[in-house]
Amino acid sequence: MSASRFTYLGPEGTFTEAALRTLPEAATRELVPMVSVPAVLDAVRGGEAAGALVPIENSVEGGVTTTIDELAVGAPLMIYREVLLPIAFALLVRPGTQLADIKTVTGHPVAQPQVRKWLAAHLPDAEWESSASNADGARRVREGQVDGAFAGEFAAAVYGLEPLVTDIHDAKNAETRFVLVGRPARPAAPTGADKTSVVIWLGDDHPGALMELLQEYAVRGVNLIRIESRPTGEGLGRYCFSVDCEGHITDRRVGEALMGLKRTCPQVRFLGSYPRAGLAAAGVAVPRTGTSDADFTAASDWLNRSLDGRA
Amino acid sequence: MSASRFTYLGPEGTFTEAALRTLPEAATRELVPMVSVPAVLDAVRGGEAAGALVPIENSVEGGVTTTIDELAVGAPLMIYREVLLPIAFALLVRPGTQLADIKTVTGHPVAQPQVRKWLAAHLPDAEWESSASNADGARRVREGQVDGAFAGEFAAAVYGLEPLVTDIHDAKNAETRFVLVGRPARPAAPTGADKTSVVIWLGDDHPGALMELLQEYAVRGVNLIRIESRPTGEGLGRYCFSVDCEGHITDRRVGEALMGLKRTCPQVRFLGSYPRAGLAAAGVAVPRTGTSDADFTAASDWLNRSLDGRA
Amino acid sequence: MSASRFTYLGPEGTFTEAALRTLPEAATRELVPMVSVPAVLDAVRGGEAAGALVPIENSVEGGVTTTIDELAVGAPLMIYREVLLPIAFALLVRPGTQLADIKTVTGHPVAQPQVRKWLAAHLPDAEWESSASNADGARRVREGQVDGAFAGEFAAAVYGLEPLVTDIHDAKNAETRFVLVGRPARPAAPTGADKTSVVIWLGDDHPGALMELLQEYAVRGVNLIRIESRPTGEGLGRYCFSVDCEGHITDRRVGEALMGLKRTCPQVRFLGSYPRAGLAAAGVAVPRTGTSDADFTAASDWLNRSLDGRA
Amino acid sequence: MSASRFTYLGPEGTFTEAALRTLPEAATRELVPMVSVPAVLDAVRGGEAAGALVPIENSVEGGVTTTIDELAVGAPLMIYREVLLPIAFALLVRPGTQLADIKTVTGHPVAQPQVRKWLAAHLPDAEWESSASNADGARRVREGQVDGAFAGEFAAAVYGLEPLVTDIHDAKNAETRFVLVGRPARPAAPTGADKTSVVIWLGDDHPGALMELLQEYAVRGVNLIRIESRPTGEGLGRYCFSVDCEGHITDRRVGEALMGLKRTCPQVRFLGSYPRAGLAAAGVAVPRTGTSDADFTAASDWLNRSLDGRA
Repeated sequence: MSASRFTYLGPEGTFTEAALRTLPEAATRELVPMVSVPAVLDAVRGGEAAGALVPIENSVEGGVTTTIDELAVGAPLMIYREVLLPIAFALLVRPGTQLADIKTVTGHPVAQPQVRKWLAAHLPDAEWESSASNADGARRVREGQVDGAFAGEFAAAVYGLEPLVTDIHDAKNAETRFVLVGRPARPAAPTGADKTSVVIWLGDDHPGALMELLQEYAVRGVNLIRIESRPTGEGLGRYCFSVDCEGHITDRRVGEALMGLKRTCPQVRFLGSYPRAGLAAAGVAVPRTGTSDADFTAASDWLNRSLDGRA
Repeated sequence: MSASRFTYLGPEGTFTEAALRTLPEAATRELVPMVSVPAVLDAVRGGEAAGALVPIENSVEGGVTTTIDELAVGAPLMIYREVLLPIAFALLVRPGTQLADIKTVTGHPVAQPQVRKWLAAHLPDAEWESSASNADGARRVREGQVDGAFAGEFAAAVYGLEPLVTDIHDAKNAETRFVLVGRPARPAAPTGADKTSVVIWLGDDHPGALMELLQEYAVRGVNLIRIESRPTGEGLGRYCFSVDCEGHITDRRVGEALMGLKRTCPQVRFLGSYPRAGLAAAGVAVPRTGTSDADFTAASDWLNRSLDGRA
Repeated sequence: MSASRFTYLGPEGTFTEAALRTLPEAATRELVPMVSVPAVLDAVRGGEAAGALVPIENSVEGGVTTTIDELAVGAPLMIYREVLLPIAFALLVRPGTQLADIKTVTGHPVAQPQVRKWLAAHLPDAEWESSASNADGARRVREGQVDGAFAGEFAAAVYGLEPLVTDIHDAKNAETRFVLVGRPARPAAPTGADKTSVVIWLGDDHPGALMELLQEYAVRGVNLIRIESRPTGEGLGRYCFSVDCEGHITDRRVGEALMGLKRTCPQVRFLGSYPRAGLAAAGVAVPRTGTSDADFTAASDWLNRSLDGRA
Repeated sequence: MSASRFTYLGPEGTFTEAALRTLPEAATRELVPMVSVPAVLDAVRGGEAAGALVPIENSVEGGVTTTIDELAVGAPLMIYREVLLPIAFALLVRPGTQLADIKTVTGHPVAQPQVRKWLAAHLPDAEWESSASNADGARRVREGQVDGAFAGEFAAAVYGLEPLVTDIHDAKNAETRFVLVGRPARPAAPTGADKTSVVIWLGDDHPGALMELLQEYAVRGVNLIRIESRPTGEGLGRYCFSVDCEGHITDRRVGEALMGLKRTCPQVRFLGSYPRAGLAAAGVAVPRTGTSDADFTAASDWLNRSLDGRA
């Protein structure tokens, strides 16, 4: 039953699984790990799963380009939720292993720069061997091929290991952002603290095209959260832009900005409006004067009166 | 009967009357000269006239500030037509007067800079005396107070004078623009070559406020024709802007720009959308890519599909 | 001796004379009234006077277009000082005249809208007759042609009249701004609260040309104080812009903005940098981050180091 | 001898080595492969090598984030040359192997998406195994661990293999861009077709900060070639931008834009001005009116004359 199944970037025991398990809607689903982001998303496209959780951005490594590129092309998908997960590694070992016993360590290549300083300080002589995933690294420790694996603490139980050290992370505030993706449908209702994602292709390569794109947002008082250029595959110098902004597509200022992009750019793909995670600290920005829904409605009424000679 | 009456800036024999008589709708009306722009417009506001013709801009002298300021405040009025009149003066004299006989010349103060070079070349010794209007100057010539009056050639017959010299104008292409003003009503249907006039007050006096105003037009691909700053009367440094742009309020790009101004500026007064005069030479600019009504409709349809998950 | 002479827009007893007398440098000069702004300025151009005081802006009437246009063309002149004068009229009468005796009043046409409400309240039946200047109106009262003249209170003594009522002004905070003009020379040293005036001609009439002009200021953090469009005389739709900004030409941000205008516009005329009058209330704006002279110097040093591979 | 040595991202037989060998300056150097971009660059920083060649952008995969991030922080390095290499893979096999014999194929993970369609069409049943590099894949084929390796045709000779199929590339015009990096020194002289690279950190996270950054370029007529956001490592939502523009730091328009960025952004790192590769097709854009060096010099002269009262 597809509606009862969520796919995620596996294997079991990865941060992606941990992120997925924070979602209430995951509690009643069958959670199916898959080997690659394309595989995870194709399961949704093909109807074998109702949703998929994939990493999209890491505060240390940047955008997860496979995810960004997979969402930009192919059968349309939409984002319905985002999950932020603080990234802290545990050093998983076979029961009984001491720090002094560790000659080799492993983890996903992305994990390495996030534990490099810790390694230099505590295990300067340990040799690094990359694994296909953090979870796969744990498996290799269990099988005795490597002495220690950097992975989420939650992976210890899955692989019968012990967390020898926990909360390892070179960068403060390291986080990974994951998105829950499904087939296109009506976006969730606005919550008052939402974000809206699109992919935008620029037209003729004229200077200033990017600035014009940004002005479609700016002139309506819509704040950008993230912009990332990606190659279109048509050769060096040809880019599309993956853009997240504040607000919901049903907010008038956001809707008008999206229509402006749609009118003036050769292609725009709407990737969804969904609740913004992790705003405890920053809070929601107050819309710029004149850009609330009430302002839009009042201006529309005024235009109608003007058209009737009653302004 | 007010509906049968048009007022204009008099007296009889001025360029304003000549401009008014070029309008087909003037043929069947009683044309009533009045002594000042406020008087002309108040007659319309008060219902004593259906329309009024007043000068608003001169290619040599610039904006006619009385007209601009009168339209900006008080009971709302709207512009329904504009008339361009080439400005060429005739030197009107009593029958029989020769150039060598002329010791004194007159005309409205605005006329003087437009005939200064001609005077220097042909009547270097003649003394200038300002009159309240060009037509009043003609009257003074008839009464023998002055020898020659600069006025429209058409004024000769009205005042029993002869045009001794015609087609006098220091500046090439000198023109005055007049507007036909009435009480607010539904604007005339778009013709494909229209202009739209507004008055805009800026809010807090922050640097860049004018640029933000211009961006509301620019980002929708609406071209400006004229912008003029005027004091608000609240002290030096406080201005409002009188702005004409290409297009009709029913053009989607214009309507959205006006709504953007309405939302973000403390006050906007719509002064009308009306056919643009005198485009023979320049032609109508092709709207920028993505700003035609069809583009707006397509983008609106796309937004609706996106809201339904069908984009 | 030209160096000992200042011209001003006369006749004696006008607000312009009063403004001129507030300047310390006027105390030791011969002050010569002249009949028109062109005459006043030509005396400076021709070397017959060292300086000239002319009105340039009125908080009620707006820009004094004759002055603006005269400074824009012809032999170059520069502004060295500005003077703000609160505009308050006195009603001048022959000694012994009572309010009830007044049947006719006069003044310069510009004065009329500034006393209109006062007239309606206090002399509703008095008839207005325009004079060539407020001072000329006073002269006509002295000669018995009119009963009362609106003029500066200081004109009473000049014309042997009495100020029957003083401090008459319809608009609150009404002020006129005057500029002291001379032949081009090195601008006065910056005071920390200066302004810089230029006239800018736009090139090809492309949409957005005005916005590009404004961006040359904005991107360097230079605030605009005043912008006024003026016809170039080449036909309707062709304008130049008279622009005042904050700061002194020796401020790096202002100098770079002016060079940007000079590079990208077909013509720019520098009209001077001079102390800004009347800042008691508002104060000087703090330059935007990164636009102080120290910031420019530091950036220039950095560029030089970069060119040497030492950044 | 460090001056005689260039490092590159190894091992031998990679595209990076092939790119390096296209440079004349490589002909007389010892070319030393290293295992990672950080290692390659640290050899230059430490003085063990005079230069280093690293990939920085791929037309299919996008920016090489390790390279971008390594250049953004740590001891400064500068780019002196760029090399474009068309990416076409050969399928390398042990001598005698036929297409029908191939059950397993390998290559660097980045190679996989670039040969995926070819694999689906010609070897739909072959299993993919990632290798640490394309060259390492070739080594594994030689050792009999895998049947075929996707690598540059030039790698065949290095590893004693045969190119069974050549010119394999899913995307048309696939190219990788490499940069030759050295310790900071005076940039090479401008060639007339140069580019300039910087890394820019935005300050306070205000909406519009990115647009202001772009305006520093736009207002001086400097065209952008590439912009890429990268996390600063301070948490999600904090980015710096890696930007390439047209022109050389000694071009006045570029120098002024860089100084504008330096003034207004908290940090700017200059990464070099160097000849732009691969412009045969597009040609060099003509600078916008008013932005040539001659225009800058003329404007500077005008400013100096204005400061002296001689403009």
